[in-house]
Order: sequence, then structure tokens, then C-alpha cells
Amino acid sequence: MDFDVLFQSQIDALKDEGNYRIFAELERQAGAFPRAKCHDNDSPDEVTVWCSNDYLGMGQHESVIQSMKDAVDLYGAGAGGTRNISGTNHAHKLLEAELADLHGKESALLFTSGYVSNWAALSTLGSRLPDAVILSDELNHASMIEGIRHSRASKVIWKHNDPEDLDRKLAALPANAPKIVAFESVYSMDGDIAPIAEILDVCEKHGAMSYIDEVHAVGMYGPRGGGVAEELGLMDRITLIEGTLGKAYGVVGGYVTGSEALCDFIRSFASGFIFTTALPPAVAAAARTSIRHLKQSDQERIAQRQRVAYLRKRLDQEGIPHMDNPSHIIPVMIKDPVKCRMLSDYLMQQYGIYVQPINYPTVPKGTERLRFTPSPLHSTDDIEHLVMALKDLWKQCAIAHAVA
Amino acid sequence: MDFDVLFQSQIDALKDEGNYRIFAELERQAGAFPRAKCHDNDSPDEVTVWCSNDYLGMGQHESVIQSMKDAVDLYGAGAGGTRNISGTNHAHKLLEAELADLHGKESALLFTSGYVSNWAALSTLGSRLPDAVILSDELNHASMIEGIRHSRASKVIWKHNDPEDLDRKLAALPANAPKIVAFESVYSMDGDIAPIAEILDVCEKHGAMSYIDEVHAVGMYGPRGGGVAEELGLMDRITLIEGTLGKAYGVVGGYVTGSEALCDFIRSFASGFIFTTALPPAVAAAARTSIRHLKQSDQERIAQRQRVAYLRKRLDQEGIPHMDNPSHIIPVMIKDPVKCRMLSDYLMQQYGIYVQPINYPTVPKGTERLRFTPSPLHSTDDIEHLVMALKDLWKQCAIAHAVA
Repeated sequence: MDFDVLFQSQIDALKDEGNYRIFAELERQAGAFPRAKCHDNDSPDEVTVWCSNDYLGMGQHESVIQSMKDAVDLYGAGAGGTRNISGTNHAHKLLEAELADLHGKESALLFTSGYVSNWAALSTLGSRLPDAVILSDELNHASMIEGIRHSRASKVIWKHNDPEDLDRKLAALPANAPKIVAFESVYSMDGDIAPIAEILDVCEKHGAMSYIDEVHAVGMYGPRGGGVAEELGLMDRITLIEGTLGKAYGVVGGYVTGSEALCDFIRSFASGFIFTTALPPAVAAAARTSIRHLKQSDQERIAQRQRVAYLRKRLDQEGIPHMDNPSHIIPVMIKDPVKCRMLSDYLMQQYGIYVQPINYPTVPKGTERLRFTPSPLHSTDDIEHLVMALKDLWKQCAIAHAVA
Repeated sequence: MDFDVLFQSQIDALKDEGNYRIFAELERQAGAFPRAKCHDNDSPDEVTVWCSNDYLGMGQHESVIQSMKDAVDLYGAGAGGTRNISGTNHAHKLLEAELADLHGKESALLFTSGYVSNWAALSTLGSRLPDAVILSDELNHASMIEGIRHSRASKVIWKHNDPEDLDRKLAALPANAPKIVAFESVYSMDGDIAPIAEILDVCEKHGAMSYIDEVHAVGMYGPRGGGVAEELGLMDRITLIEGTLGKAYGVVGGYVTGSEALCDFIRSFASGFIFTTALPPAVAAAARTSIRHLKQSDQERIAQRQRVAYLRKRLDQEGIPHMDNPSHIIPVMIKDPVKCRMLSDYLMQQYGIYVQPINYPTVPKGTERLRFTPSPLHSTDDIEHLVMALKDLWKQCAIAHAVA
């Protein structure tokens, strides 16, 4: 059997529908964010990154860099084992204590990524709590969907951000079944924010456990960066808060926080936690430095909000349509994978503006988009350059439409 | 519903059967391997680590440390996004080219961990190749088992390291079904090595794809560290070679290598690859330095084999039973979780020897063991100290048996 032919035919199908992904090959430049070198042909050597999840530029913050290097000097490169077999370093324990404190929880558990933390936590909860039912917001992230699927627990999808629908669906379930309500705070593709208080009201009414993914919010919202739930004073009502060290904190890794018993349960039974090499101690140390910095400093959050508001205002002034939402994410809908890729290529090649086309399977087909994430480090000139580039392209598109 | 009560009851059950895991809290000391600080009560402040997967001590190799720090200076801490959305750094591409070269393959694909590479690759292959059947060695690692389970493809378990059983089971399948044979080279718990050539003969006879996990072998076997398949000159007959950067290479991360079409297929469809933040560029750079070093240098492999042979010899001389196998892993069977933990505690507290008890679910119940992994950096004195400690304990156990 020629397996390559099988593989290639599915790749070709992706290409035919415009959904084949081409990764931009960048070279980040510590201290120059949002500027990066670009290794792609047809692109300028230096580009401005407009789609990073390093939302606050903390991945290049001097204190984070220094702490990572210091920890490499102290501990070496890797952890040397799984958490159970020689891989638990003092730096992991310090980070877990920092995370528990961040969310006001008894305990925290570190994973190799946010993806793995969702996948492992939900698959463990769903598979080990007898008769559990997981109620999942219909727009939950792939990592949650796969974790729920892997658990083989009963699954109920509720309408996106709709506590009334959740209420109806919880009411229809047996009273004695353990119920887990899984949702996100900030949904990264539309940038909308869940009605957390209302969802918690419904959870409490039905005795359900609440599971919130704050990966696009930690570091960004709340007086200490604890996320939207911290901003709204709701953390203590949530059973499990999941987050990432790879976005606003600028490093890599994921975690869950909750009661001592909850974290110990996941620690003890989650395959994706047990059977994997621990994160390098230097990664843990750098992440902790970033968290501690953003617990004390509001300046990055304030500057970023100002940048986000300013870009929105300028887009409005120039008549460039963008999706309205209360978060830091600015989606510009294109609704066609080929056009989305084309616009992205133009921006990169003609203007040195890098914004990845967001196509299927990251978003549903027909909702393709460009998605801008202004950081505190994007200057007014950067914003002006972006707005003018988009204006040019919109003009060309309008002409193309008029001629067609 | 009191979820904590549910969690606690399952934790208590683990404790009752002696399978509750207690992680040793270490503080690795770059340059002092296998010595580490220990933060646990009742343990000496400094211990000798005897169970690390940093098999060659490369996690503390000067060139690896320097390369990680240099890359942090150049690129900052994190990658800043998923591979698709701004997270592909030049360092990732260089590492992937290095890995493809290591295994003599067209292409390679990097994952956040070895666990994720197995899980994501197998679940993608199994779910996207219509009518696929995955034939899995009965002792495959949890990451492969979970990947196969997640794929929901048909699964056939064949007897451990038994090509004849595999042959029979392949023969019973429909000729036109895509067949994937998944196995490991070195099985880390018993330290035995698969009959790779015979397995490949059977795969080829039936037109099956071969999928080998070399995580405990890369860096360690073969003239350039390409694994057991390299040592035996078999790499070109294998469809997919999976490996890790977290064991002999001393850093963290996983990968698959194979044809261009195979890697592009997994890159394009694997949820666990697509929807996760890329590894920090500095991790990729450090791993590449480690791979390049072990491509050229045999000295670590030679020294390690000498240490392994010497420890085996001394155990034999002192009459301490250990499992015979052709690899670098020396299991000492205890066959009881409580005794296994007790012996581990004694070794740690009385002798400053750290070897984690290997209990369920890492090994089947009743096969609990201590598992020693001598590195090139364990001195003759370290080995003597370990052997004498074990001899003392065996004597005490014999006395206990005699009295009982």
C-alpha cells in the first residue's frame, strides 16, 4: 500500500479548498518586539508581527529573559524525567505555588502546554467520575473538545455564552450525575467574553462543577492578571481555573488550579500529566517571573488596552469593518479562505505586516478572518502603517468588486 | 454535589493500595549531575540521582546550556504563538532539518513533547486513513495507547516483541485496509529491545506501515545517535520514526520523522500539533546543539555503556538480582508497591540515593520495581555506594524474611 499517495490526496484536497497552511518562518528578535526577521521568500527581511499571542510582549521582557538564563545556569536545560521519576524540580513547585496564589486556590498543577492541561484534566474528570456528564460551550477550544471526546463521558453541547440554554440542559440531567460545565472566558477567535457570573449562578443552582479556560485572559485581565474571573471577583466560585504560560506570560506550558483534592486527583490519574517529561526548570522559572511581574505591574495591561482602543478607532475612522467585542482581539472578517490568504500575503510582501490568515479548522469554513492583537509595544506609527495598508487593500478590493 | 469527596475517595484508594505517588522535590545543579539538592524532609540535602532519563547528562552539557542561553538572548523566552499563527521560529526549522537528517528521512515535525507526538500522530493516522487498523505491541507506552484509543480506529494488540504473532494478526485483516504497526525499540520498564528487522519483514510482507517509538534510544544507540534502528541499519525501512528531545538529548519536546507527505499530513491535520503554542526557540536551539553533539561524539555513549556494564557486574558479584536485558536500563524487581516505596525511602534517607519506586500505573500491579539508569557521570564510587547500600538492605530484608 502506498501510504504517501493516501497522505498526499488529503493534502491536495486542503490545497484545492484554500485551507493548506503555510507557516511564516520568523526569527524573533529579543528586545525588538513586535519586529521580527522573516525567512520567507517574497517577504521583507524584517516584518511587524500583528498576530502574536505574546500579547504583552512579556516573552521578551528583560526580567523574564534574565530569569530564564539564570535558571539554565543553575539547573541546566531539561528537567531530566517525568514529574514522578526525578523530574520534579524546586522551580516547578515554586511556580505551582505562584499559580495557586494567582487564582486564590489551594493548589495548582503544571502541564507541558495549555492544550495538554485541558485535554488531560477533562479526559480524567470525565472518565474517572462515574456517570459524569460534561456540558461544553459549543465554541470551546479544540483541546477541551478532544479532552471531552477522549473521556468518553456523556457530552452535552450548550449554546455559546447562553446561560439559559445551559440551565435547561442541566435541568434535563439526572440529579445525582456529576456535572461538569466547561467554558472559556475570552473566546479568541471572536474575542467575545462569557457571562461568567450568570453561568456560575446556573452551575450552583444545579450543583455542577465549573471549569473555566482563561488562557486568553490570564496576565491580561484582573488587578493581578488573574483573568476575567479575577476582574469580576468570581474566582472563588469556580471549581477549576485553567490557564496558560504561553500567551500573555510569554513562555510555554499550561496549568489547572483548584482545591487540593482536585489537583491531587488529576495529578494522580491523568495520563497526559504522568507519562511525560516535565517542563525545563528554566521555563518554569521564567514563567514565574512573568506572573510575578504582572501581579504587581498594571502598566503593560493599561498600555495594551490603549493600543487596542486606538487601533479600533483608526479602523472606524477609515471605514474598515471589524468585529466589535469587549476584549483585546480585533478580528477583520474576510469569509473566504483564498482571499484571506491573499490579503495576508499582500500585507506581508507589500507592507511588511505579518498577520496569519485564520482559516478552517481554526474557525468554521466561511468565517475566515484576519485577527489583530495589538501589544503595548506596537507604536502609533505601527498602527498608522497597518491602517493605511488595510485602507489601500480595501480600496483595491472595492475597485475589483466594481469591475467584476 | 461535593466533588472534593469524590476526588478524595479515589486518592484514598490509591493510598490504601500503596500506589499514591509522592514526587521527590529536587533542585538540579548544572555541572554537578548526577548530584542534586533535595528539598524533601527526612532526606539529605544532597542526593545522587539514579533514575533520570537524562541518560547521558546532556541536559547539563556546557554546549547545550550555552546554546539555550544564547538563544534566549537572541529570541526571548517563548515562541509567541502556535506554529501556524506567528510561532514558527527559524530555530524550529533548523531543528526539524537536523532531525530529518538524524534519521535519514525527508522531513520531521516537532511537537511539545514525546507524549504529544505519539498521541497526535497515531490519533491522526488512525482517524484520517479510512478503515485503518492499528496493530499495537501489548507493552506500548501510554502515549501510543491513548493516541490509538483517541483515533477510534480498529485496534489489534499483538504479543510483546513477537513478530510471528504480528504476522498472524496481519494476515487475518482485509488486504485493502491500511495497516499501521506501532511498537517501540527499547521498552523502558524492562529494558528489552524489539526484534526490529523481523518486525519490518512482517510489515513489508503485508504492506503495513511501520511506526517505531525510539524515545529511549535516540542519542544512545547508533553511530550518530539515530537509535537502535540506526545501529542495525534499518532506518530506511521504517515509515515513521518517533523520538524525544527530553531524555538522552536532555531538553524537552518530541518529534516524528518520515516522508515529506507523511509529515505534511500530520502537520496539517493533527489537533495536538495545530492548536498549541510552539516550543520556545531556545528549547529548539538547545536540543539541536545536543543532537549535533551526539551525532559527532561517541564518548558519552561509550562511557555510559561501560558504567552500565560495571554496575551489572557489581550487582552480580554481590548477589543482588536484576533483570537481564540488552539495554542501558537496570530494573531490580520488588513486586510489591509498599515495599518498593519503602526501599526507595530507605535509599534516599539513609544513603542519599534517589531512585523512584516504579509502581502502577507505570508498570502492572505485582511488577513494582526500582529502576537504575547509570549515566557516564556516575563515578565508580557512586556505583560502589549504591551496591553497598543495596547489599545492606537486602541483608536486612533477608533477616526480616528469616524472622517472619
